[in-house]
Order: sequence, then C-alpha cells, then structure tokens
Amino acid sequence: MIKIDNATDIKDIARGAVLLGTGGGGDPYVGELFLQAQLKKGNAPRVVRLEDAPDDALVITIAGIGSPSVMLEHLASEKTLLEILRRAERLYGRPVDMLISCEIGGVNSMFPLALSAISGLPVLDGDGVGRAIPRTEMSTFSIYGCPATPGLILDESGNSVVIETVNDLDAEKVVRAVTSALGASVFGAFYPMTGAEVKRVAVNGTLTKSQEIGRCIREAREGSLDVFDTLLGHLNQDGRFATILFDGKIVDVTHETRGGWHWGRATLKPLSDADDVFTVDIQNEFTVARRNGETVTIVPDLITILDRESGEPITAERLAYGQRVKVIGYSADPLLRTPEGLCVIGPRNFGIDEDYRSIEELTKS
Amino acid sequence: MIKIDNATDIKDIARGAVLLGTGGGGDPYVGELFLQAQLKKGNAPRVVRLEDAPDDALVITIAGIGSPSVMLEHLASEKTLLEILRRAERLYGRPVDMLISCEIGGVNSMFPLALSAISGLPVLDGDGVGRAIPRTEMSTFSIYGCPATPGLILDESGNSVVIETVNDLDAEKVVRAVTSALGASVFGAFYPMTGAEVKRVAVNGTLTKSQEIGRCIREAREGSLDVFDTLLGHLNQDGRFATILFDGKIVDVTHETRGGWHWGRATLKPLSDADDVFTVDIQNEFTVARRNGETVTIVPDLITILDRESGEPITAERLAYGQRVKVIGYSADPLLRTPEGLCVIGPRNFGIDEDYRSIEELTKS
Repeated sequence: MIKIDNATDIKDIARGAVLLGTGGGGDPYVGELFLQAQLKKGNAPRVVRLEDAPDDALVITIAGIGSPSVMLEHLASEKTLLEILRRAERLYGRPVDMLISCEIGGVNSMFPLALSAISGLPVLDGDGVGRAIPRTEMSTFSIYGCPATPGLILDESGNSVVIETVNDLDAEKVVRAVTSALGASVFGAFYPMTGAEVKRVAVNGTLTKSQEIGRCIREAREGSLDVFDTLLGHLNQDGRFATILFDGKIVDVTHETRGGWHWGRATLKPLSDADDVFTVDIQNEFTVARRNGETVTIVPDLITILDRESGEPITAERLAYGQRVKVIGYSADPLLRTPEGLCVIGPRNFGIDEDYRSIEELTKS
Repeated sequence: MIKIDNATDIKDIARGAVLLGTGGGGDPYVGELFLQAQLKKGNAPRVVRLEDAPDDALVITIAGIGSPSVMLEHLASEKTLLEILRRAERLYGRPVDMLISCEIGGVNSMFPLALSAISGLPVLDGDGVGRAIPRTEMSTFSIYGCPATPGLILDESGNSVVIETVNDLDAEKVVRAVTSALGASVFGAFYPMTGAEVKRVAVNGTLTKSQEIGRCIREAREGSLDVFDTLLGHLNQDGRFATILFDGKIVDVTHETRGGWHWGRATLKPLSDADDVFTVDIQNEFTVARRNGETVTIVPDLITILDRESGEPITAERLAYGQRVKVIGYSADPLLRTPEGLCVIGPRNFGIDEDYRSIEELTKS
C-alpha cells in the first residue's frame, strides 16, 4: 500500500490529483499545507486497500464543498475536521470506521487524508468517480445505489445542517444552496456506506494512481526524461487509454461565472504556422475537446492540460494567453462508461448536445 | 378560552390574521380550507392560554415557509404535518407537548391549528411577533433569548433538513436558501422552548385577538354598524393605540420581486379634490406610511389597508388601482418597542434610513 511519509509523497498525490481533476476540483494546495504540518507533528495519514474494508465497516466521505477560490482562503482547522467526524458519528449512531474521498480529482483528495492524520482513521484507496465532477449526484456511489444522504454540512463557525433527501438530485440542490448561504466554503460528511457496499461501488486504487502520476511527472523531470513519454506509458495500463490530443499554445481563454459554475473555453493553436484550431470547453472541469470542430474527447473521459516543458497539470482558472501546453485525453474508469454511468455523467448531463463516444473511438480511427 | 367549533370561527381568525399581517404573511385561505375539512370530520383544534403552559413543557413552532403564492398551490397534507411532528420529536429527543405560532399575521396563524386538529396537541394563545415579519430573526423568541434552532424543514416529497446555527441571522440565511432549493414551499418546526421560556418571550393572546378582530368586522357588517368605529373601539384597548391614517383611493401600485422579497409602494389620494398624497411602502409587509412625505406610522407599528365599505383587510399583492380603502395604523406589542426589540425589528432593519418613532408620537401631535 502507498505510504505518505514526507512532503514529496504529498506533493506527488496533489499533482496527480490535479491531473485527474481535468481542470476542476479545486487546488489541493490548502490540503497539502495542512498535511505537511501534520507530518511535522508525527501525524501521518494511513491508506488501506479498498479490498481490505471489512464488510460491516461504516465508511463515509469527508469533503470540502464550495468555491475553490474561497476555500483557498479558509485553511481547514483541526477542530472543524474533528467536529464533523463527531457529528457524523452522532448522526449515524455509531463510530465511523473508515474514510473515502468523494472525488479524487483536486482538493477532495486531501481532506480525508487530513482527517486521517489527526483522527487515526484509515482512508480507503479509492473514490466515487476517479476524476473531478461538478455535481453531487455524478458519483459511482450514487449511480450504483449508495445515496449521498443522510449527511451533514458544517462550517468553521459551527453552523451545521443535516440533509436527508429522497434522491441525490435534491441533495445536490440543497447542498449547493446551503453552501452558498454559509459563505461558499463548508465541510461535508456524506455517503454513509458499509464496507461491502463501498467495495462494489467505488473506483478502486485512485489514491495510488494519483501518487504514481505525480511521481511519474516528478521523476521524469528530475531524470531529464521526456515527461509525456513517461506519463503516457504509465496511463496506458490496465485497459485504460491515454494519448496526446494537441501540442500548442493558448491563444484565447474565456471565463464566466454563471449559476454557481465556472464556464469558459480555451482556444489553442499549434506552435507551427498550421491552421489547426483546438478548443477545450470548461464547466468547472474540461468537458469536451475538439480539433477543427471535431470532437476528440468528451466527458466522462478525462481531458487535462499540462505545461509542455514541466508536465505540470494546469487547472482551468489558471489557463492564460500564451501558455505552451500539451493536452492529454484519458479514458474514464469503466464504472463511468456503463449505460447507468453515462445516464448520469454523460455529455447531455453537462448540456452538451452530443452522444458519448469513447476517446478510443474518437482518436484511433 | 376561545373555541374553534365552526367555519365562522375559523374565518374570523383568518380575517384578523390578515389584518395583523399588515399586508404580508400570506393568505390564510389554504389553512382555512384544511381546518374546515377537519372540523367536518370532528377534529377541532384546541387553544390554551399562554399562562397555562407547564414550565417544563416542550413547545415548538410549526410554520409554512416560502412564497405565499406557491404555498396556495400546495395544500398541506395531514401526512406531512404529522411527519414533521414525528421528526421534531426525534430531533428533540422527547414528545412535543404544545405548539405555538411563530407569527400570527397571515398564513402561519393556521398551521399550528391544523396540526392541533389532527394530532390533539394544544396550541398556545400567542405568537412570536404579534404581526407578520419578513425574516426569521425578527421574533420576540429570538430577541429575548430563545434561538430558532435546532429546527427542521420538511417538504411534501419527504426531503428534510435539520438546521443548527450559531445565531438566528445564519438560521434565516440557511432556511431561505433551503426553501428556495426545495421549490419555495416547505414546512418548518423551529424554536424549541420550555413552557417557562415561552411565557417570558411570547406575545400573549394573539389568537384570541385575531378572532376578536375578525368577529368585530363581521358583526359590524352584519349589524350594519360602522365597521371602522367598532374596529377602532376594539383595537384601542389594553394600552394599545389605533387610528385611521388615511381615507381615499389607490391611484398607483408598484410591485417588484427582488432578493426573494416582494417590494413595492402604494400611492393613495383622497376621494375629495384635495392634493394630499399618501404612500405605503411594501417589503413583504407594509413598512412605512407617509402623508405628503411625513411619516405617520413606521415598523414595527402596524399598518393595514382595508376596503372602506366592508372593512376587509387587503394583502399587499391584492392592492390594485382604483380600490377605495381606509388605512389604519396600530401600535405594535410592547415587546417589539423595547430597545432590544427595535434593534432587530426597527426601521433600519428594513433598510429605511429613519429612527423609529411611535404612532402615538407621530399622529397625536
């Protein structure tokens, strides 16, 4: 199992989590700082394999919810993290045995690890999506029958809201409304599951994958290897597929905040004089990449934009004119590509009037 | 103690509640229908004097929350009312002994009576404001030390949200956000109080007052007496003061929905050729009445507009060009006129840049 013993381990996970965040999910920096401070105190988070969850264990998610930019200004306090655990145990009427990330991409890779470091509870090596997503109900937990509620929200002032809805679409509406009312940065404990359930519904091994992706980029850089060769070698494993979709520079980026989401589009051109135009649409995450108007990767498959020299993945809000980048497409976890999965996290759920086609179908022809 | 045995009793209470609603508080019509149906089944609500609440009783408020127009379309179901009581008892960890209205003005005079009819629990003869108000924290319960939370919201689908905030300003924000997320018509159980507390913080006798006001208008009409003479005779009791502020017709009404509130202004002129201009500002309720620019009554004192023939009180959203009306000003309950009360429910809390002056001071000089 992966070990998290030092600042480099944490940085690797955070870097991998930004790649899996596909432009969204928030910057894990706050969580990184928190974990580094804990390591200095001798408090290391503990990760265990998904397969090792006892069938009767109570597993819950711990997440930061809200605007990533506001979240950056509010470092999680030990007090609040421990308080949300205490209140979750009161809500569920029994001790919590294990934690899991609701989404591995971005900031929410970090909060379960942070609570693990201070509480001693183990974190399962997996999550509910294998990437980042903009809405509560877009989760393999929801899709395969483990609802988000009853769950609870807590803010740093001590305001708490216990939510129990008849479906996860309503849960999403209430969570979003409460988060906004409480100032756009809160913590949540949701998705109470048994160990038996979580083994059935979670995307497996994604903490390990984050760390490996992060390490792969770092080691290639340190060893002066080609970062992208190394990275693609790593991603093209276990039946998953990844490829470079485009190599060029950003010539335009639009950003808009509307309905609580970050919308936008990045437009890229090749470094050569060629006329190709490449676009990446943003709805918190990168949702669809098109070359000259032809779709080459679309949700739930992953799109990630990386600095073309360092291989550092770049979040949507940091994209800027003139950046030289490579765009990678990466097949989603098989749990997202089933008919049940695509029903909830397919292109039309993002308002894109297009059927899902896999990155393999779109790029290998 | 008042008895509620037939349709006339209910109609009287509802009419009085509209007067005390000072233009807002919603139309009690839905609650009226519900109660009439219960009376036909032999289920009468039971009202007891505030003084008779045992010190150790658990008293809570039951309210409809949301847009009155949406609420009109959603008749409360017996199932939902009983379910909110069941969930409140689970939340508070003990049986609820008595109910009380959070605000007597408008629709929320009715819901505790409705639950009383089907559950047998008594309703205390009082409320948390003696009129209608636009925000949770504007309550004598809040002002004198009994917070709104822990409390809960339930909708007809079965979605529930338990709210526990550090102050009632935050409670108001969360309640408003959740109500909007769940479709603008929900039910709430809030303000858990002991009998000892409720006797200290409630406005006393307001169910009786509603029924008496309603009966007074009806009986004057039936007996061909002057409705306004009779009504003013009734209101000018127990140290309270009421007077006719204006007699005329509505020559203009503006309505605007902004930030979840109903804003507007009614402009009136005399029936004679006189040049007087009388205005009543609306923020859900009527907030300030001015004659030729001079304030004559301002919150928390009550302003109510009545049909000048029938004496029927008119809610803000029903005001229309050409209506012939009389405007009554009525001193607020003494609990709202203390420095603590005015701090929360004074003119500046409604965005009016003016100090509170009592209706007595403004009209008797």
